[in-house]
Amino acid sequence: MRDIHAMSPDHGRLRLRSVGLSDIRKPLTVQRPDATRTLAVTFRVAVDLPSERKGSDLSRNAEILAEVVDQTATRPVASLESACSAIARELLARHPSATEASVEASAEYFLRQGVSEEKRSFEDYLLLAEAHSTRGSDGSITLVRSIGAEAVGMTACPCAMETCRDRLVEEFPLLARPELKDLPMITHNQRNRTRLVFGLPDATEVEADDLIAAIEAAQSSPTYAILKRGDEAQVVLDAHRHPKFVEDVLRDLLASLPDRFRSLPDATIVRASTVSEESIHKYNVEASHQVTLGELRTSGAR
Amino acid sequence: MRDIHAMSPDHGRLRLRSVGLSDIRKPLTVQRPDATRTLAVTFRVAVDLPSERKGSDLSRNAEILAEVVDQTATRPVASLESACSAIARELLARHPSATEASVEASAEYFLRQGVSEEKRSFEDYLLLAEAHSTRGSDGSITLVRSIGAEAVGMTACPCAMETCRDRLVEEFPLLARPELKDLPMITHNQRNRTRLVFGLPDATEVEADDLIAAIEAAQSSPTYAILKRGDEAQVVLDAHRHPKFVEDVLRDLLASLPDRFRSLPDATIVRASTVSEESIHKYNVEASHQVTLGELRTSGAR
Amino acid sequence: MRDIHAMSPDHGRLRLRSVGLSDIRKPLTVQRPDATRTLAVTFRVAVDLPSERKGSDLSRNAEILAEVVDQTATRPVASLESACSAIARELLARHPSATEASVEASAEYFLRQGVSEEKRSFEDYLLLAEAHSTRGSDGSITLVRSIGAEAVGMTACPCAMETCRDRLVEEFPLLARPELKDLPMITHNQRNRTRLVFGLPDATEVEADDLIAAIEAAQSSPTYAILKRGDEAQVVLDAHRHPKFVEDVLRDLLASLPDRFRSLPDATIVRASTVSEESIHKYNVEASHQVTLGELRTSGAR
Amino acid sequence: MRDIHAMSPDHGRLRLRSVGLSDIRKPLTVQRPDATRTLAVTFRVAVDLPSERKGSDLSRNAEILAEVVDQTATRPVASLESACSAIARELLARHPSATEASVEASAEYFLRQGVSEEKRSFEDYLLLAEAHSTRGSDGSITLVRSIGAEAVGMTACPCAMETCRDRLVEEFPLLARPELKDLPMITHNQRNRTRLVFGLPDATEVEADDLIAAIEAAQSSPTYAILKRGDEAQVVLDAHRHPKFVEDVLRDLLASLPDRFRSLPDATIVRASTVSEESIHKYNVEASHQVTLGELRTSGAR
Repeated sequence: MRDIHAMSPDHGRLRLRSVGLSDIRKPLTVQRPDATRTLAVTFRVAVDLPSERKGSDLSRNAEILAEVVDQTATRPVASLESACSAIARELLARHPSATEASVEASAEYFLRQGVSEEKRSFEDYLLLAEAHSTRGSDGSITLVRSIGAEAVGMTACPCAMETCRDRLVEEFPLLARPELKDLPMITHNQRNRTRLVFGLPDATEVEADDLIAAIEAAQSSPTYAILKRGDEAQVVLDAHRHPKFVEDVLRDLLASLPDRFRSLPDATIVRASTVSEESIHKYNVEASHQVTLGELRTSGAR
Repeated sequence: MRDIHAMSPDHGRLRLRSVGLSDIRKPLTVQRPDATRTLAVTFRVAVDLPSERKGSDLSRNAEILAEVVDQTATRPVASLESACSAIARELLARHPSATEASVEASAEYFLRQGVSEEKRSFEDYLLLAEAHSTRGSDGSITLVRSIGAEAVGMTACPCAMETCRDRLVEEFPLLARPELKDLPMITHNQRNRTRLVFGLPDATEVEADDLIAAIEAAQSSPTYAILKRGDEAQVVLDAHRHPKFVEDVLRDLLASLPDRFRSLPDATIVRASTVSEESIHKYNVEASHQVTLGELRTSGAR
Repeated sequence: MRDIHAMSPDHGRLRLRSVGLSDIRKPLTVQRPDATRTLAVTFRVAVDLPSERKGSDLSRNAEILAEVVDQTATRPVASLESACSAIARELLARHPSATEASVEASAEYFLRQGVSEEKRSFEDYLLLAEAHSTRGSDGSITLVRSIGAEAVGMTACPCAMETCRDRLVEEFPLLARPELKDLPMITHNQRNRTRLVFGLPDATEVEADDLIAAIEAAQSSPTYAILKRGDEAQVVLDAHRHPKFVEDVLRDLLASLPDRFRSLPDATIVRASTVSEESIHKYNVEASHQVTLGELRTSGAR
Repeated sequence: MRDIHAMSPDHGRLRLRSVGLSDIRKPLTVQRPDATRTLAVTFRVAVDLPSERKGSDLSRNAEILAEVVDQTATRPVASLESACSAIARELLARHPSATEASVEASAEYFLRQGVSEEKRSFEDYLLLAEAHSTRGSDGSITLVRSIGAEAVGMTACPCAMETCRDRLVEEFPLLARPELKDLPMITHNQRNRTRLVFGLPDATEVEADDLIAAIEAAQSSPTYAILKRGDEAQVVLDAHRHPKFVEDVLRDLLASLPDRFRSLPDATIVRASTVSEESIHKYNVEASHQVTLGELRTSGAR
């Protein structure tokens, strides 16, 4: 039987940067401090293809995924990103003519959270992980990893809050009294989705739960599945006492990272983005930034 | 050449309710009072299949769509639902063994709207239309149509508004003063998507713009692309002066229909649904109802 | 504190059919014969609302979900539909003014499958479940459940196969030789998604894995993550030896149910639908049907 | 009234790379050689934000979009990318403290195509355009643009074709006869989505229709809405006579560009990607590459 993949390309003898599988879904079992959890993961796995080969042997990619991921049903892995790293290494091992491999993974993730201890229930988040492996000219393998998370919370607009106050003071002169100076004013508020990803230069570990905590602290308020009446008021009040543009969410998040992640190296690449699904518009507003942790540390942005 | 479709089924000699095409997209040109507009429409078209035929000749469906829709590029139709009706009739004409045909269509639709005349710009909505044709035993064709629209607006929660007031009065006793009785209080507000569909028993015409006007009047406030600072305050104030649960949006919408649509017959079927993308939760809340216009007229629900 | 929900509606004193939560996601742990599995479930839960109440107390719905679902982390349930039934009962218990409750749930589901024993790996499917509870005038609760599944497989078109054969016989007269009568001919083939849902009138249990087996047997071929070269040929051959229109997939599926589900009552409602993502078109073709199992049994459709 | 946006940030005095609007939809009227067409466009527009400003004045972005896009209803523009360029310039004009602006746009696009002249009907494609403007230290504005398109067609797998032939020759020895050497063999075939984007260093114009033609020529076959029986056979035959991996689609597309786009400068950046929605798997396979047109010209990849 002829090996079609190993033949020469018909035309266009070009090395291709990336050939692989996408939208492949697998259940991955991870061992968390408290319990084992099964994540339903969407993977994308790819390698480069040298100019002299017609095809990449893609069935190997499916085999690697099956081996690494399926075995976690009985032998859980530590984390999504450690599974990605193992896959990225194995891709280069089984594609001897490839020099680069990339693995991207995302999965829904549940954490028990609540406005108070007795009202905790599972809230849903998004986990993200990547691993990129490169084969050096001496055969050595270099691995770069990233880990990220996305959390939905709430923002309240500081600008409309100010213009509403101005408007209402005209109608209700009592509002100008100093006793009411700190009365939270109406404004538009809405769902906010914020994402934080760390590109890690070495084997440093990061806990996804710490990423989620950093994000939720930067939003006007986290949000919860279970809110009885008094709790609703508390969340609304919290949000209105921390009114934030997407610009504020992004800067407050970035400014908090040096203190929250002291053990990460300066070379850590920070990618952050945030989207508010504006209640007063049919469109979204968003902000994004990329910076190293070292730059954040020296910028004095706190 | 054997006609595979006309052969007998291999197994399972059952009449099938519906066989057709879905997710087929076409540009439809409609003649509006002010201008001709081109809608990018997603169609679903289907007929039933008698028990003795193996297959429905689906290429006829694509031909009908091409003929009816493509010719609107030079000869615009009056509306999306009139195109659906023409397609539903033609489906029965070209599928002589079918007794039922159905056409479903949806399209994005733009209307120039604004918080004031000089701040008008295009806002996006969703148009919906259906037509179902039935062949009677005497060969006569009966046609039932529906027309609908969906609009995104804003709701402000009346319950959290009340609990926030109670909470804030404790902290700011001045708030209990009668002069501040009507001061709008903070609450959570969010995007709301509301849909209204009329199932029409006869050839009555309904303007999609009137459906959209009814929906926007039932939300806490419509929303706009262009809002300068004072306008933002106005929309936020309007929304907080009309706080609404999804239940209120739905009932207010339904209660407004007898006055807004006096010329429609009692047998008109009204399907309405509304979804608020809660800012204080990661999930949505929603309400839906179905009723005839005649029932709304006699219920005294105003 | 005033109970806003219990107040009278401002306008439109109408009973509403359905008020509830949607797109609420929870991890549900189920006990399967072989292992415990955690499903990431999307729920929709709703009750009706009497005409005299302004609002449904939606925080109760979130509490019920948290209680029923969260406790499965330590005490797994038997199935997705048993969780839905428990939630539907509890909705009526905690909404004393409601007379109807509905729960809809969907979740990704993984099964180890393979073209051969040693090439098994996890394939992804969709699980569906619903429960509707009704409170009778004597206070008794009636529960109706449904359980369903969706599987992605493959179809090969029998019509294009025939026209390709006709065309190729002209070019390759040898093809007319009787020895080549059964040679599988080229045709278009594509992904097919087929869904089967049983509406169960009583407490009968159905295994989701049996629904998936019925669906995969009705497609031209199941599909797999791991296919080495010889396996690819086998799947392609199988599909071309079972060429099927969507009409065939649907009828073959329906015709197989009486033998496959002998213990289910005649009153079981069968809803089946199938979609082929045509490789030669940019649109899909689809077929759907609804029938009782009793009707299938007496139709002789095998 | 205080200008909240112009205030200093509360924390984190960082310049942010990108702040803007996303998922904002507008109808854009373009003048094509044959007719005026209205595209329903999704825009993303953003500028950078200096470290000393709390907020970007986002209402200006909505105003610019309204002005540039709404006026095309009466004065059509030449193309989607010319609208993007105008918006990118205007963003820097109205955000005096910004130094970079970016505009991304996508829209569905219809072209009349057919397997033959009389079977032409509208087929749907995706248009993509971007414009990035930068303000130099001397106040001059530099503009970089990109234009792209995506087309859905069909691929047939060359590897499974070969293994099926090997398998079938065993069962049908006649197949080994030289007269049947060119008989197209069964294989799996499926929808393929391929995207081609040119990053243009100067004011060169590219026709979207030429991008689409290049893509469709690189797939195993284009696909069509209207195919009568003989036409289906023709498309299936064409696809099986041009079996292609995603690697082949990508290389054949890239190799065709030097001849197809002779007038574009060497510095043109080519980004191409292709996805096959495998009929024998539940996942997709994909390939992507980035290269300059100059590199393609010198690589001899034809």
